[in-house]
Amino acid sequence: MKAALIQQSFTANKRENMAQSAARIREAAKNGARLIVLSELHNGLYFCQSENPDFFDLAETIPGESTDYFGAIAKELKVALVLSLFEKRAKGLYHNTALVIETNGTIAGKYRKMHVPDDPAFYEKFYFTQGDLGFKPIETSAGKLGVLVCWDQWFPEAARLMALNGADILIYPTAIGWDLNDSDDEKARQLEAWKTIQRSHAIANALPVISANRVGFEKERRDEGAGIDFWGHSFICGAQGEVIASADQSATILYADLDFNRSEKVRRIWPFLRDRRVDSYADLTKRFVD
Amino acid sequence: MKAALIQQSFTANKRENMAQSAARIREAAKNGARLIVLSELHNGLYFCQSENPDFFDLAETIPGESTDYFGAIAKELKVALVLSLFEKRAKGLYHNTALVIETNGTIAGKYRKMHVPDDPAFYEKFYFTQGDLGFKPIETSAGKLGVLVCWDQWFPEAARLMALNGADILIYPTAIGWDLNDSDDEKARQLEAWKTIQRSHAIANALPVISANRVGFEKERRDEGAGIDFWGHSFICGAQGEVIASADQSATILYADLDFNRSEKVRRIWPFLRDRRVDSYADLTKRFVD
Repeated sequence: MKAALIQQSFTANKRENMAQSAARIREAAKNGARLIVLSELHNGLYFCQSENPDFFDLAETIPGESTDYFGAIAKELKVALVLSLFEKRAKGLYHNTALVIETNGTIAGKYRKMHVPDDPAFYEKFYFTQGDLGFKPIETSAGKLGVLVCWDQWFPEAARLMALNGADILIYPTAIGWDLNDSDDEKARQLEAWKTIQRSHAIANALPVISANRVGFEKERRDEGAGIDFWGHSFICGAQGEVIASADQSATILYADLDFNRSEKVRRIWPFLRDRRVDSYADLTKRFVD
Repeated sequence: MKAALIQQSFTANKRENMAQSAARIREAAKNGARLIVLSELHNGLYFCQSENPDFFDLAETIPGESTDYFGAIAKELKVALVLSLFEKRAKGLYHNTALVIETNGTIAGKYRKMHVPDDPAFYEKFYFTQGDLGFKPIETSAGKLGVLVCWDQWFPEAARLMALNGADILIYPTAIGWDLNDSDDEKARQLEAWKTIQRSHAIANALPVISANRVGFEKERRDEGAGIDFWGHSFICGAQGEVIASADQSATILYADLDFNRSEKVRRIWPFLRDRRVDSYADLTKRFVD
């Protein structure tokens, strides 16, 4: 199964972003991809750099405009799409939601970001209520997709729960970048840590991982903050964490041929699921043991 | 706090191995190390390559010969030591046990390997009963040491539980190597996966990690199996997973100056402990969700 991820930059023009994504989805499909992953909140700039009540206007319902638009493309091209949207669930209730469009254009399922960050320039707790759908893979014709979102990538628990629920692959639409005030050393540590922890989820669970980030510098729009230099470096790795395809900081499409049966082979030589000490893991549901 | 790990090879002669370790502990202490970590089962060859009831003779009580021997050295040099022993707990009841000797020569605490492997040439389930002391850091004058052992390193749960119990550092005495029948590509993937997953525990928990492996080729002694080429590559990394010191496949001592206060700083910029979804982690105590 050939999978692709699209790494790109965005503008404040939603229609323009959607058209750009559509063009790149067409290109990826033409190159044989059957599963195509977009990066986090791919319909616009990363608005969470400041807390602005007006920005809730950017949200949309699911189903809605984007699922209609991309649903038609998925159906036409017979590809499965992983989208990432600012979901308006009800008046005053919003989520950071990823979803999968099936090859027939229907919504296969959705995942609401469970771990929501809140850090300088990433004020997501202002916008997004934490997810309430749990860690359930989305069943599709392209496999059981363990779709998670950005901040989730730092939590081994999220990856493990997707694996225990039968995921064939872990998929992370993401939007992460550098604070310009950080030193080059700190930037290098952050990028390497980001790649390392996601590769570790592949290793711990013997599952391939697709991580799709955005690129481009986005200046904070309200209080003239420093902005975020989105670091790209999207990648696809195999079930032992080995990198199959990786990007630098330019717009690109990455491809990988994935064989989900390889997880069975890897788990036979590294039978971690056999040996988990589930009798001794109860404290994982605690905040801290004190 | 200067820490050191000793990467070395062993023979079938226990006394010789102990003397070799003692000499290298003296060297590390002379170079300023206050915490010194030995690799897994450092008193002999890796006997688990075959299942042989006679090999239970290699076990010893705790306290016993090794804790007396190394306790005297620790006291003399005023260093904390992490040892790894084949523990005889009772007639017919054995564990793979790591322990910490305090700077005054006493036993600060012990950890019985919780995840016990059993794979071709690593027949540990024959020898070792799985640990029953849980994932509790050992309190010492050198900090709260999250001592785990080898196979534990593949389980994010073990590292997380040590962190939730207040560990200042994760320490993995280990004995891992290549099957000579594997391809060079497979060997490279395995080594890289091993480093990656341990560095990921540093990242997920904002804790430094010390991983001490052995080196040397050890031929299986009973049925003339292929043997194991222990791959060395011990390393020390910081709280963002950045490698501070690393070895190749030769005998060596690695050093690192560790500042446990850095974990506080890293957790302020990456507040993963703040955002864990403990309300949604219950299934981590299941073998599989089916």
